[in-house]
Amino acid sequence: MPKIVCFGEIMLRLNPKNYLRFVQANEFEASYAGGEANVAASLAGYGMDAFFVSKVPAHEIGQCAVNELRRFGVDTSEIRRGGDRLGIYFLEKGASQRASKVIYDRADSAIALANPGEFDWDSILNNADWFHFTGITPALGANACAITLDALRTARKKKVPVSCDLNYRKKLWSREEAGKTMASLMEYVQLCIANEEDAADVFGIRAEGTDVRKGELSRDGYVSVAKQLTDRFGFEKTAITLRGSVSASENFWSGLLYDRGEAFFGPDYRIQLVDRVGGGDAFGGGLIYAQLNNFDSQHGIDFAVAASALAQSISGDYNLMRVDEVEALVKGDGSGRVQR
Amino acid sequence: MPKIVCFGEIMLRLNPKNYLRFVQANEFEASYAGGEANVAASLAGYGMDAFFVSKVPAHEIGQCAVNELRRFGVDTSEIRRGGDRLGIYFLEKGASQRASKVIYDRADSAIALANPGEFDWDSILNNADWFHFTGITPALGANACAITLDALRTARKKKVPVSCDLNYRKKLWSREEAGKTMASLMEYVQLCIANEEDAADVFGIRAEGTDVRKGELSRDGYVSVAKQLTDRFGFEKTAITLRGSVSASENFWSGLLYDRGEAFFGPDYRIQLVDRVGGGDAFGGGLIYAQLNNFDSQHGIDFAVAASALAQSISGDYNLMRVDEVEALVKGDGSGRVQR
Amino acid sequence: MPKIVCFGEIMLRLNPKNYLRFVQANEFEASYAGGEANVAASLAGYGMDAFFVSKVPAHEIGQCAVNELRRFGVDTSEIRRGGDRLGIYFLEKGASQRASKVIYDRADSAIALANPGEFDWDSILNNADWFHFTGITPALGANACAITLDALRTARKKKVPVSCDLNYRKKLWSREEAGKTMASLMEYVQLCIANEEDAADVFGIRAEGTDVRKGELSRDGYVSVAKQLTDRFGFEKTAITLRGSVSASENFWSGLLYDRGEAFFGPDYRIQLVDRVGGGDAFGGGLIYAQLNNFDSQHGIDFAVAASALAQSISGDYNLMRVDEVEALVKGDGSGRVQR
Amino acid sequence: MPKIVCFGEIMLRLNPKNYLRFVQANEFEASYAGGEANVAASLAGYGMDAFFVSKVPAHEIGQCAVNELRRFGVDTSEIRRGGDRLGIYFLEKGASQRASKVIYDRADSAIALANPGEFDWDSILNNADWFHFTGITPALGANACAITLDALRTARKKKVPVSCDLNYRKKLWSREEAGKTMASLMEYVQLCIANEEDAADVFGIRAEGTDVRKGELSRDGYVSVAKQLTDRFGFEKTAITLRGSVSASENFWSGLLYDRGEAFFGPDYRIQLVDRVGGGDAFGGGLIYAQLNNFDSQHGIDFAVAASALAQSISGDYNLMRVDEVEALVKGDGSGRVQR
Amino acid sequence: MPKIVCFGEIMLRLNPKNYLRFVQANEFEASYAGGEANVAASLAGYGMDAFFVSKVPAHEIGQCAVNELRRFGVDTSEIRRGGDRLGIYFLEKGASQRASKVIYDRADSAIALANPGEFDWDSILNNADWFHFTGITPALGANACAITLDALRTARKKKVPVSCDLNYRKKLWSREEAGKTMASLMEYVQLCIANEEDAADVFGIRAEGTDVRKGELSRDGYVSVAKQLTDRFGFEKTAITLRGSVSASENFWSGLLYDRGEAFFGPDYRIQLVDRVGGGDAFGGGLIYAQLNNFDSQHGIDFAVAASALAQSISGDYNLMRVDEVEALVKGDGSGRVQR
Amino acid sequence: MPKIVCFGEIMLRLNPKNYLRFVQANEFEASYAGGEANVAASLAGYGMDAFFVSKVPAHEIGQCAVNELRRFGVDTSEIRRGGDRLGIYFLEKGASQRASKVIYDRADSAIALANPGEFDWDSILNNADWFHFTGITPALGANACAITLDALRTARKKKVPVSCDLNYRKKLWSREEAGKTMASLMEYVQLCIANEEDAADVFGIRAEGTDVRKGELSRDGYVSVAKQLTDRFGFEKTAITLRGSVSASENFWSGLLYDRGEAFFGPDYRIQLVDRVGGGDAFGGGLIYAQLNNFDSQHGIDFAVAASALAQSISGDYNLMRVDEVEALVKGDGSGRVQR
Repeated sequence: MPKIVCFGEIMLRLNPKNYLRFVQANEFEASYAGGEANVAASLAGYGMDAFFVSKVPAHEIGQCAVNELRRFGVDTSEIRRGGDRLGIYFLEKGASQRASKVIYDRADSAIALANPGEFDWDSILNNADWFHFTGITPALGANACAITLDALRTARKKKVPVSCDLNYRKKLWSREEAGKTMASLMEYVQLCIANEEDAADVFGIRAEGTDVRKGELSRDGYVSVAKQLTDRFGFEKTAITLRGSVSASENFWSGLLYDRGEAFFGPDYRIQLVDRVGGGDAFGGGLIYAQLNNFDSQHGIDFAVAASALAQSISGDYNLMRVDEVEALVKGDGSGRVQR
Repeated sequence: MPKIVCFGEIMLRLNPKNYLRFVQANEFEASYAGGEANVAASLAGYGMDAFFVSKVPAHEIGQCAVNELRRFGVDTSEIRRGGDRLGIYFLEKGASQRASKVIYDRADSAIALANPGEFDWDSILNNADWFHFTGITPALGANACAITLDALRTARKKKVPVSCDLNYRKKLWSREEAGKTMASLMEYVQLCIANEEDAADVFGIRAEGTDVRKGELSRDGYVSVAKQLTDRFGFEKTAITLRGSVSASENFWSGLLYDRGEAFFGPDYRIQLVDRVGGGDAFGGGLIYAQLNNFDSQHGIDFAVAASALAQSISGDYNLMRVDEVEALVKGDGSGRVQR
Repeated sequence: MPKIVCFGEIMLRLNPKNYLRFVQANEFEASYAGGEANVAASLAGYGMDAFFVSKVPAHEIGQCAVNELRRFGVDTSEIRRGGDRLGIYFLEKGASQRASKVIYDRADSAIALANPGEFDWDSILNNADWFHFTGITPALGANACAITLDALRTARKKKVPVSCDLNYRKKLWSREEAGKTMASLMEYVQLCIANEEDAADVFGIRAEGTDVRKGELSRDGYVSVAKQLTDRFGFEKTAITLRGSVSASENFWSGLLYDRGEAFFGPDYRIQLVDRVGGGDAFGGGLIYAQLNNFDSQHGIDFAVAASALAQSISGDYNLMRVDEVEALVKGDGSGRVQR
Repeated sequence: MPKIVCFGEIMLRLNPKNYLRFVQANEFEASYAGGEANVAASLAGYGMDAFFVSKVPAHEIGQCAVNELRRFGVDTSEIRRGGDRLGIYFLEKGASQRASKVIYDRADSAIALANPGEFDWDSILNNADWFHFTGITPALGANACAITLDALRTARKKKVPVSCDLNYRKKLWSREEAGKTMASLMEYVQLCIANEEDAADVFGIRAEGTDVRKGELSRDGYVSVAKQLTDRFGFEKTAITLRGSVSASENFWSGLLYDRGEAFFGPDYRIQLVDRVGGGDAFGGGLIYAQLNNFDSQHGIDFAVAASALAQSISGDYNLMRVDEVEALVKGDGSGRVQR
Repeated sequence: MPKIVCFGEIMLRLNPKNYLRFVQANEFEASYAGGEANVAASLAGYGMDAFFVSKVPAHEIGQCAVNELRRFGVDTSEIRRGGDRLGIYFLEKGASQRASKVIYDRADSAIALANPGEFDWDSILNNADWFHFTGITPALGANACAITLDALRTARKKKVPVSCDLNYRKKLWSREEAGKTMASLMEYVQLCIANEEDAADVFGIRAEGTDVRKGELSRDGYVSVAKQLTDRFGFEKTAITLRGSVSASENFWSGLLYDRGEAFFGPDYRIQLVDRVGGGDAFGGGLIYAQLNNFDSQHGIDFAVAASALAQSISGDYNLMRVDEVEALVKGDGSGRVQR
Repeated sequence: MPKIVCFGEIMLRLNPKNYLRFVQANEFEASYAGGEANVAASLAGYGMDAFFVSKVPAHEIGQCAVNELRRFGVDTSEIRRGGDRLGIYFLEKGASQRASKVIYDRADSAIALANPGEFDWDSILNNADWFHFTGITPALGANACAITLDALRTARKKKVPVSCDLNYRKKLWSREEAGKTMASLMEYVQLCIANEEDAADVFGIRAEGTDVRKGELSRDGYVSVAKQLTDRFGFEKTAITLRGSVSASENFWSGLLYDRGEAFFGPDYRIQLVDRVGGGDAFGGGLIYAQLNNFDSQHGIDFAVAASALAQSISGDYNLMRVDEVEALVKGDGSGRVQR
């Protein structure tokens, strides 16, 4: 089984039940998630040997995060314990024209304040087949950024392929900071994952003819974004998610993989949203699975798009689909008929 | 902050969870709502100084109604305590072709049996900027009707503008009774709010070419209804909601404001219904907010339609949207993308 | 009131709440259902004197199944007590492109292992106006099959009309076994109910031009299936459900009744699925109701299609609609407007 | 199976979950109960042929009451449909020193306003072995009282034994009204059931040396109450419940049966309260079961006390214990060890 | 109505349902509480004009805290909006020998980082009849401590009586820091509230013969603690809670009021714990109510002990008892009998 | 970290919420448990390297069992996948005098029908420090019994110490079968765990003067049982749980360890039961932990009794206490005071 190492933050996610607004909530559903943890969970669900590396407090809430990962098969043996708090994000699920909202409360989390010396990347990346991180981690602060850089240098040294999801978070840093820092990390990356907003926010790369608020999709524009990213940083492959937001209840969803000058588009799905958070991470998980299993580019993007479409029909950030279930949709059965 | 006074009944609303039928329910969600209370909650949520005036029993269930209003910022200091019971309405939410159902159990409620002497309108309306009532209140009985008339006369005396939502309830009175009584109250009203069924049921005013059960919308027909209402009663403005019922899960929603001979239509929304009860009240709340803030007619109807569309994506009767959230939809972002 | 006797298995149905996957569930909603029990519940809800005949364990879980039937008005006085276990089925509700899943755990249930001698069909069918079974019951094993045959012979002797829903379950028997056994039972049947997959699986009867996974509907193909079934077995009437699976959240739904050479199609509904399991049973219940009340063929199929469309907007297997509610949809009001 | 007929009101019971106060509740558990309905449910659970006779509205909430009774095996075929509302009672469960609270909202219920002509007691009591009512029913108003009297006269004519639980409700009538009316009905009663407060409130019969608020139990005092009741009205048997209220969480519980001059005391239980409402009704149900099965007086009171102790460990008004379970406690196993 | 001003922090409280451990929880009940907010809620429930003064973030979670206070009648008009986060505390309710656990995540909360200039105490304390704070607030940091001192000086200037609950939190500061800072604030305090651990931790004041882990109660020891506190700081009155911890499910509970050299003990209650957090705050609220209503010392301590005993039978931190309910227990009815 | 291997069945546990009876339940809480799995979970929670070895179906419900174990840190890498079903047990929690009930539905489970060849014990027990099984596993059938014997022989060969909890289940086999089979396995056992009923049921070993239904505890009797077991089978150590069942809500709980002729009694706890199922397994887990950490006999029995007392305050079968938490109770703090 291939070994994949994902590094980043895991947070307590708190969301009101169903479609309640925050101000109506007397209870929150609690789960534990984060961009890189979500990728690890995807890959563990596909039967891979997926490690999530982070730091969580030594108290019970930190333990809860570890337990949630273990439950879904992620290897947590490289998670450090210590620090004062687990980051939190509050999520209010939208419906119809009412948008979903996220409130972050993640400052000074255990991983944000961890020390580089706590992570022995030579050991952690021993025998690893893949390393994954996102643009959120270096945004957490100087420490987390330094640890990321250590990991990337070790990965290069050990020839471990690296993927990065740009994932710009404007609450964490400015576009300028993001652009500068992320640019310096891109040299270590072979597979770059982004959506068109990330590309614009972080690197100022834009596609003409697309207004995301209007849910417009311009295929050429997306190819242009992928090409610009690839050309600037020399990625082996670049993947872009395509979301057409009809409303908070219904989206169109697709993606493209730009591989050595050629753009491969996945299928277009009209999806009824159960929980869209984590959709991009499921896309990343699908892509990495495809690389590790040597799928051709068309199969790879088909798999990643199908996986991430399905992920958005599942409550919580994690994509809990098996490979056979994703492949069934890739093969065209999106009819939702009962499987008995 | 403008002071708005809403007068009417607040009821205990009991509905099975999710889409369960009454006969499946072993528990009910409990909230406290009513046409005028819902308007007050909308306006309090917009930061206005909104009073709800009514009478509730001195027992704990009456207190619960007060608490729910207070929670969402409504001033409850003019609610009287006494009488035997709080009115109740049971709601079963429909889905797809299955219609929602309402069962009323509101006879002999505290407010229906209250005495005019219990409400000192000179004091209550002191410094008020608006007074709102609906056709439900006079339908509760002779007492409630007399109190309404007292309020209206005081409002006129104090030059407090008045809005009325016709809101015909066939379980409370006949079309003949409604027509006669409501006609006598219209002289006090500056802003009339209705849907096309209310106009027909109460005043016999009809638009050709519209069959509500088929979800057909004829713009001209709605303008005709508004014009007839305005011409007969001399309202300053008349507003009509336009609901196209595709199913219990999906509606088209819009509205028009007829202002001195001109009809202003709001945007058309295709809405996925979370809880459609209270949609009309959110429309009324939006209109009153627009008047108090001197929005022009187009902005006013846009705001009211957007607010009421959003309200139907929220569980419960109350519209719990802030002004900035409504304005974001007015400005065109109905994509439901996550706000981080 | 007509007396209808339904014979088969009732199972404990366990499903995660809302749209949770099995692996996310920490609790299951529990109900008690089965193809024939669902038909009995439909008919009891229409005010008929509906009996469900089966065998359940003498313990509390068996009693729960009896109680659920009694709650919805089914006569349970002919249910036998004994045996070791109640069959169970686990249901995961799908959404969007993610299919619903059913896991059966029904081997060695009380009814599967019951003895023919336990059921005195002369007494049970005394004064009966209808007998209903499905292809699931004979598939449960030799005993259940023998009891079914006893029932059918007694029904013929007493001139009780018989309906059968083919309902092929590939986990219970092979196509060959099903075809052979079911063919031997068809001589007792007057009203045959099926979907196009059942007809193909059990009797190898196919319509050209239909791929259920693609949600395609070919009206002619369905008529061909009905005609072939009718011609081969000499049914008085044959009814076919038409499901167009757009996704796990949305289907198109209709049905046809083939009556002495003529095909009557019901209305086409686009349905938002709340719980699609039991839709076919509601269709059967509607058809039987129509027969017992001498509806003409068009009214009969309209009623059955409307009933089964509505059933899929209700949580659980049972169709909990009253006759007046079904007739309202038959008459064209599918707008879902609130009934006050 | 003996046939028992219970006549009275069934209400919607609404209680917050667990130990929440009314003002904390955002949802209510819903069940359907009443003094006489609870007795019928007890007896149905013991396998008797128990009828509950009443009138409920023709709407869905009325149907819910019927369904709840059917679920637990009560025969509902003599329940009339009509009237406007089902009575409601709100229950807040206490804990420790905090008392439970009941708020009634039962005025003008369907049964309170029913007409004597709606109940054909000759038919209803045909072949009946027992008739049961409580002091609540005549307190509902002149109509309900007249219907009760009709029933009692018919019972006498048909030689059906009658039990009455005094059950004084101060919110329904004064002590004077209760005393006068109930005295006039006692001549029809063979088995009288009461607690010491009822005896005092309705008939002014008191035992010295008992202060219920202090949880004191004086055995002689209780015998004195039973003897006075028996002597004044000529009952065959009189039964009294003995509750020692330590707190809202813990009670002592026993009872006595006064049978032709001799007092038989049941066992004393220290009970942890799960839901004490309906405890007295379970006592009555146990006594009637004992009479119908010719238990000797000691066994009868033991059974009734054990049944009603167990009933208070069960959520809801209904006693859902089987005969074998009650008998196990009668035989002394109150250890609560797991039954595997 | 007397006006009381309480100043401090309000936090989001998150606790697993029922008695689940943190590691079992998939959802948290959410409420909003804090030592001083709880006192304000108590007093609002008694009908007082209770203000809670604090600072909460301008986002929805901050609004939730405001709404919870408003719901229960607290005046929130002096709460400032701003800062980044609301403090959080996680609570796991214990049972039997398993202790309850609290995990704090409150660093850098809006109130902890507020500036003294944000609170105009001259205005806030205008016409105030009482000011209350606890030892938690100055422990939040230099800013919160400075604001507290401002408030105290203004209170002295305006002759507003002041109460302080020592409430030592070892996670916030050391015993040394607490002792030094609190000693400097005591000169402004007229009514001091403490338990014996606080007195020891903050001021090194100890009673011989008491080991709290063994649940031992030495009345003389408590009087000694009260006397030492009074003598050292010159309080007008000093009140001490007495908790005898039998287990996490059952406690003994009492309190004493030391008033000018005389010790008044309240009643001893054996309480079944529903939620013990906030018990001490309810004691403080009862004492303040007693002062404002000129209860004599015995009545005052009886009221405070009864109120706080009852508070621990209620879920959540807030004491939601009315004055009449507390007085009923003071008068001796702790039997928990149903109030109908 | 010591490696412990536990072998046995894991079942789906379904219980109604709170104290609902089966016949009231509309939903079940779902967890996954079994005597040996519970021991593994205890040990994993103490930080040990605990393996659970079994076989579960390859479907999602089987996966759920694996996930639950993983969540709590148990190594599931030696669980086989296959077979048709996961065993199920239904649990109704009792209260007060009402006993808890268990209904088993475990016939033909995957592990009961597994083949000895599926388990390579040489590999599984490689480097193992302990092996644990219970009397339930050989009772599942000839296959499971043969696999157990294989494991025991391998353990002896590898000098892995073995513990066995007798755990007699009368629904699985007769006393005669149990006695014969278990006697043949005892030669492999070093640590025997039992309660006094098991000893009597399986081996006919009785203590005079104890009637478990009366909750009587005779210390001498228990020592006699331990001595007889030890003498007959030559165990190194024998441990007995002592349960005094006051009611389903309250028990007395202790245990003894018989070690080379000397009896060590643990503390006596009066426990308020939250969930008593799994108490004995927590006792076993505590004992094994004590052996692996070389606790002296008194410390060992103290630890085991404290751990198992605490386990019964936790919902579900699993003991989710950490070592430090158990030791705190061992050291005498059972006061349940809040740990902040």
